[in-house]
Amino acid sequence: MRIGILGSGLMGGKLGTIFARAGHEVVFSYSHSTEKLKKLGRHGTPREAVQEADAVLLAVHWSRVDDVLHQAGDMSGKVIVSCSLPMNADDTGLVIAHTSSGAEELAKKAPKARVVSAFGTVPSEVLFDVFERRRNATKPSLVYCGDDSKSKKIAAQLIRDAGFDPVDAGPLRIARYTEPFTLLIAQLAYEGNKGPELAYRFDWLGK
Amino acid sequence: MRIGILGSGLMGGKLGTIFARAGHEVVFSYSHSTEKLKKLGRHGTPREAVQEADAVLLAVHWSRVDDVLHQAGDMSGKVIVSCSLPMNADDTGLVIAHTSSGAEELAKKAPKARVVSAFGTVPSEVLFDVFERRRNATKPSLVYCGDDSKSKKIAAQLIRDAGFDPVDAGPLRIARYTEPFTLLIAQLAYEGNKGPELAYRFDWLGK
Repeated sequence: MRIGILGSGLMGGKLGTIFARAGHEVVFSYSHSTEKLKKLGRHGTPREAVQEADAVLLAVHWSRVDDVLHQAGDMSGKVIVSCSLPMNADDTGLVIAHTSSGAEELAKKAPKARVVSAFGTVPSEVLFDVFERRRNATKPSLVYCGDDSKSKKIAAQLIRDAGFDPVDAGPLRIARYTEPFTLLIAQLAYEGNKGPELAYRFDWLGK
Repeated sequence: MRIGILGSGLMGGKLGTIFARAGHEVVFSYSHSTEKLKKLGRHGTPREAVQEADAVLLAVHWSRVDDVLHQAGDMSGKVIVSCSLPMNADDTGLVIAHTSSGAEELAKKAPKARVVSAFGTVPSEVLFDVFERRRNATKPSLVYCGDDSKSKKIAAQLIRDAGFDPVDAGPLRIARYTEPFTLLIAQLAYEGNKGPELAYRFDWLGK
């Protein structure tokens, strides 16, 4: 697949690198540092990253969503896999929650695109660890949700490519639960004493 | 320990049974059915369940919290381990979220008690499975949070006794994240196709 990265920071830089190692054609864009973009690999403007992309990873701070969508231009029919959490400016809390979610608001901002919420629920620090263990029998889970089954299949494939076991959590509105879950993960990863390399797994126990 | 059960429904009935099997002295209370209370074992009024209890499990529907607290009487100094989620009357959504949580509101309702939020994040259907596997090396996680370290130690012990690996998620306000997480768990358990016997595990991956 061809994957455009909108936001080449901690999450976007690492996930794009992982997608490239998994064999995808990746175009990075939208970093504070052109130097960083050069180091990451093939790069361009947000518009160039989105053009001809089979999937677009949105990984910008919430305060940048409007700007990057504006720069990206026409997103009609595009699959947007978003890990952008609707955090306030000082990253202490959600600005959208309970009665809506960042993912649902994003879908309103880009109504012609097909939004899947994924990859937000794990710290960037664990991504390479999980990818390197991708041939292990037991993989960490990664929840995703969305309203369009075709784009959810693409997201599930990317989740598998990154070494996780995709767990379909249902429609996009379930992001109202997965986004606070991400803050629980962040609490355990950054406020506990076991370090940020945290993954999670759902297990259905048989009789 | 002596444990009083306030609310002997699906969660309270099963958890109390598990605590009793783990060697604790359990007093059940507050069920629609006296017949059910009799079958569960030692039982009494909420006031009797709370008297001399080292820990009280609150496991009533949110709409019943005020009533059961009223019936229980003085809770000064009591450890309340709560799995009561602040659900609306038809169980379709949280009535408290984002800017507060059921656990924090409970702490306001019982200001002299010491509230720990625990056990809400797993379906009742998985409890016996997990308890029966309690000698396995790898146990499912169970998050808990609270503001009082002594009562958190008691909650962690009960979590271990039930066969889970306790994961301290920090202060009581983290229930703002664990309660929506419970709705994610409920979505996966009751709306997916893999059944309700769902447990989760957090893993910190070393270098």
